[in-house]
Amino acid sequence: MKIRRSERLIDMTQFLLSHPRKLVPLTMFAERYGSAKSSISEDLVIIKKTFEDRGIGTLETVPGAAGGVQYISIAGNDDVLDFVHTLCNRIAEPNRLLPGGYLYLSDLLGEPVTLKAIGKILATKFNNQKIDAIMTVATKGIPIAQAVAEHLSVPFVIVRRDSKVTEGSTVSINYVSGSSKRIEKMELSKRSLAEGSNVVIVDDFMKAGGTINGMKNLLEEFNAHLVGIGVLVESEYAEERLVDDYVSLVKIKNVNMKEKQIEVVDGNYFNS
Amino acid sequence: MKIRRSERLIDMTQFLLSHPRKLVPLTMFAERYGSAKSSISEDLVIIKKTFEDRGIGTLETVPGAAGGVQYISIAGNDDVLDFVHTLCNRIAEPNRLLPGGYLYLSDLLGEPVTLKAIGKILATKFNNQKIDAIMTVATKGIPIAQAVAEHLSVPFVIVRRDSKVTEGSTVSINYVSGSSKRIEKMELSKRSLAEGSNVVIVDDFMKAGGTINGMKNLLEEFNAHLVGIGVLVESEYAEERLVDDYVSLVKIKNVNMKEKQIEVVDGNYFNS
Repeated sequence: MKIRRSERLIDMTQFLLSHPRKLVPLTMFAERYGSAKSSISEDLVIIKKTFEDRGIGTLETVPGAAGGVQYISIAGNDDVLDFVHTLCNRIAEPNRLLPGGYLYLSDLLGEPVTLKAIGKILATKFNNQKIDAIMTVATKGIPIAQAVAEHLSVPFVIVRRDSKVTEGSTVSINYVSGSSKRIEKMELSKRSLAEGSNVVIVDDFMKAGGTINGMKNLLEEFNAHLVGIGVLVESEYAEERLVDDYVSLVKIKNVNMKEKQIEVVDGNYFNS
Repeated sequence: MKIRRSERLIDMTQFLLSHPRKLVPLTMFAERYGSAKSSISEDLVIIKKTFEDRGIGTLETVPGAAGGVQYISIAGNDDVLDFVHTLCNRIAEPNRLLPGGYLYLSDLLGEPVTLKAIGKILATKFNNQKIDAIMTVATKGIPIAQAVAEHLSVPFVIVRRDSKVTEGSTVSINYVSGSSKRIEKMELSKRSLAEGSNVVIVDDFMKAGGTINGMKNLLEEFNAHLVGIGVLVESEYAEERLVDDYVSLVKIKNVNMKEKQIEVVDGNYFNS
């Protein structure tokens, strides 16, 4: 075996994996390795097949002078099922229960491997659409936004509930927090989102949907378009939700404080 | 060329890259591909050489029954120099200037590719040490903590200035904000950090070092050990800094509001 090809395969794999959704001209690879474009094309066939066989994602080829190849990160359904079931079990651990029926989830939101999987799974739902930015609200949505943004190769922007001098001019809105029915305020730095952007909203947790609805209103202030909504955990909510079109990975059906039981089931990811 | 080996090289590359600092037994790879351990060893030699030649990192082999191979993510000095100089130029853009001499940096902290590079560069400084967690303070430190944690395969924990019901019991401390000399409060969820953990502190920005010093005090409350401190941007500070042993990528030497000039130079990364 010629070492040359194996080196190319290894380096092309790492390059493509670290640049999802970036169209790479074949000439870029040809120059990088001093190889013929025909060899690069052969390499890409092998990489594409392996990516697909191993549930990593796929390669898409765009023909023509402005063309090239791009890696699309896709979570396979079996992997998603495995991951979601493990997540359900972990979230159902009784020691997560906090006073007031809240659940402690910060450990999950600080694990790189878990976040990577969440990012890949949510990104898979929005892969085929034009997206310019991911939006979330501080604090706990941030790791999820970053993970999704990584897989889609777009920036993420952070909506805040408090003002900071380091954000410059902001656009702020009032919104009704869904479950508590309180009026709250959220704001986004003016320069962080371009007019007309196509935006995916993500968050760690959704009950009535008030916070996410607030972000939707904020999008309007920027003349931005909502592409989709993704949450890690949704919670059963008796009244009408403020948001209906969303993707969730897991759903908390019921929390029994007295028996210390948390009932967690698959989210709507597989239905939508 | 046998397709088998190329498939292995591609899949092993992606597996190792997505599990930095994880010791993978050779038998795991042997079973995954139905290959002899001797073939896996040969593959690893090729991958290691390519990783080193291309500035991706290296593979470390631990011999023996409990041994295996692990990928260590290492930023090469030339790549770091290139990245830091680009960063200096971007941070010096006059339109970043905000009232009060503050700089707008949120765009950089929302770019996945930039964050990945920052994470890899800072992680490189702490690669050889035992680390159990990365610590930062909300909000703008979070993306950096996540990026560094990814390259070191450890969880990150988020210190907050406000209380949240979803954090459970917290340990809080008062600290003196360095430049404004105000007394502030920060807290960390009790269960987020195990006693005796080895911790790297990271943040986006440091001037007098008050916030980072606060986190150091918080570590003591958890009987945790400080392994190191990494910041993206440090700012020139006339008085004595509260923190002296840290790594910075860039340094703001001077901000001239009137002339709209920001002087940005390399941080101490290359000296330390």
